[in-house]
Amino acid sequence: MPDTLTNAALFVAALPYSQALGMALETVAEGFAVLTMPYDTRLIGDRETGVIHGGAVSALMDTAASVAVLSHPAAGGATATLNLRIDYMRPATPGQSLRARAECHHVTRSVAFIRAVATDDDESRPVAMATGAFTVGAA
Amino acid sequence: MPDTLTNAALFVAALPYSQALGMALETVAEGFAVLTMPYDTRLIGDRETGVIHGGAVSALMDTAASVAVLSHPAAGGATATLNLRIDYMRPATPGQSLRARAECHHVTRSVAFIRAVATDDDESRPVAMATGAFTVGAA
Amino acid sequence: MPDTLTNAALFVAALPYSQALGMALETVAEGFAVLTMPYDTRLIGDRETGVIHGGAVSALMDTAASVAVLSHPAAGGATATLNLRIDYMRPATPGQSLRARAECHHVTRSVAFIRAVATDDDESRPVAMATGAFTVGAA
Amino acid sequence: MPDTLTNAALFVAALPYSQALGMALETVAEGFAVLTMPYDTRLIGDRETGVIHGGAVSALMDTAASVAVLSHPAAGGATATLNLRIDYMRPATPGQSLRARAECHHVTRSVAFIRAVATDDDESRPVAMATGAFTVGAA
Repeated sequence: MPDTLTNAALFVAALPYSQALGMALETVAEGFAVLTMPYDTRLIGDRETGVIHGGAVSALMDTAASVAVLSHPAAGGATATLNLRIDYMRPATPGQSLRARAECHHVTRSVAFIRAVATDDDESRPVAMATGAFTVGAA
Repeated sequence: MPDTLTNAALFVAALPYSQALGMALETVAEGFAVLTMPYDTRLIGDRETGVIHGGAVSALMDTAASVAVLSHPAAGGATATLNLRIDYMRPATPGQSLRARAECHHVTRSVAFIRAVATDDDESRPVAMATGAFTVGAA
Repeated sequence: MPDTLTNAALFVAALPYSQALGMALETVAEGFAVLTMPYDTRLIGDRETGVIHGGAVSALMDTAASVAVLSHPAAGGATATLNLRIDYMRPATPGQSLRARAECHHVTRSVAFIRAVATDDDESRPVAMATGAFTVGAA
Repeated sequence: MPDTLTNAALFVAALPYSQALGMALETVAEGFAVLTMPYDTRLIGDRETGVIHGGAVSALMDTAASVAVLSHPAAGGATATLNLRIDYMRPATPGQSLRARAECHHVTRSVAFIRAVATDDDESRPVAMATGAFTVGAA
């Protein structure tokens, strides 16, 4: 992958909001990215159970998807989320890191299509899934 | 509105993740809630422009929607996000607070339907909108 | 509204699929459209109750949204559905016509944002709602 | 698969609306279904190109998803679409049959999660994808 794509992807993965939530880039390839986010008490969305807030899971998948789009050769080096659907299948197990795998599976003249899955240690049972449309090219 | 509903709504609005992002409950009524989130550099999702990350906007609308569901008399005092679609219309203006208005407009035996809108100071041009389905009743 | 917009809108409202389902254009204005679809046994999606299939309701809202986009001055006279979320609130009452109101509420360089609502005779309780993104400009 | 599940699935696949659009059930297994729909001029959504209307593609995926839910042992023999997101990647090639593969990949106490893909003869490049939530159990 050309350095420019790698750089764009790294840039997005290191944004203030991503850093505040503790995200780290694990893998990036053409149209594909994996991000992780360790368990942290600040991310809790249910005091009784200690389960992470869905919004944090969503942000992780959204960011992974942005990196996947930026690393796609047809995306033109810039992107923004147009819309995103998140499905929450089950609460993430408290204490476990989350991992989001995102794939940019189709790119048109104006839009990139993405899919993402978030898992905790039990990778056979996803915590959440995302489907979205992102802009491509210079804003 | 009965105190139990108010309490449930306040409880959700005061979760660690909501607090970490700086959310505050402005209004709560039956099936309706308004939350605000001041601009903060930790929420930035674009270094060059200082624009807040879409994931933070999404989390604000998701939380407002949860409060709206909890404050609906038919929702049974407990809820979780099943799925959520977010549409991003424009970047929030850097430096301005965000406000999310959420409405629980329909409740069935098993699911609550919500809509939410996020605005900055220019309330005539929404920053983002959300549509979602939430669980109702004891988990 | 310029005749070209009206024509484009009429053109879409008169497509074979729309005609096969019995749709008729009731109102068109800048960024706004209302389509109706009479009850018909061919549209049934539940034999026991005679309720219309959700897919027919969805097609009505999708088409109304296309007409709303085409009649928006910023849309450039051509459009296609990128993605659409449909929420089904209740079964349409058998025997009653359906009406879909669609609004194109925001248009960017590449994408039009739409909302639509489908009702039967009881207009206070929507049957379904739609949120979508459509392409704008020449394909 | 128990006969009751098969019967419920067959029942849905043979509804008036499905029949009007020419759908046929190709495969059904636990939580999985494949439906086909031959090209037909009544399904056209673009007169110039002869491309099938997105609403017909959507109805095919929605129906395939319903059959997938009904054939899932945990779904309780009855279902209705709560919400559905459709992403349209490209126009279906005129003259070719469409095939929708749907999977019910997760079922909770109240909701079934589904995914579906629609293809024409070029199965390597999907025409559209769907993600949805369906009710489970007696209505």
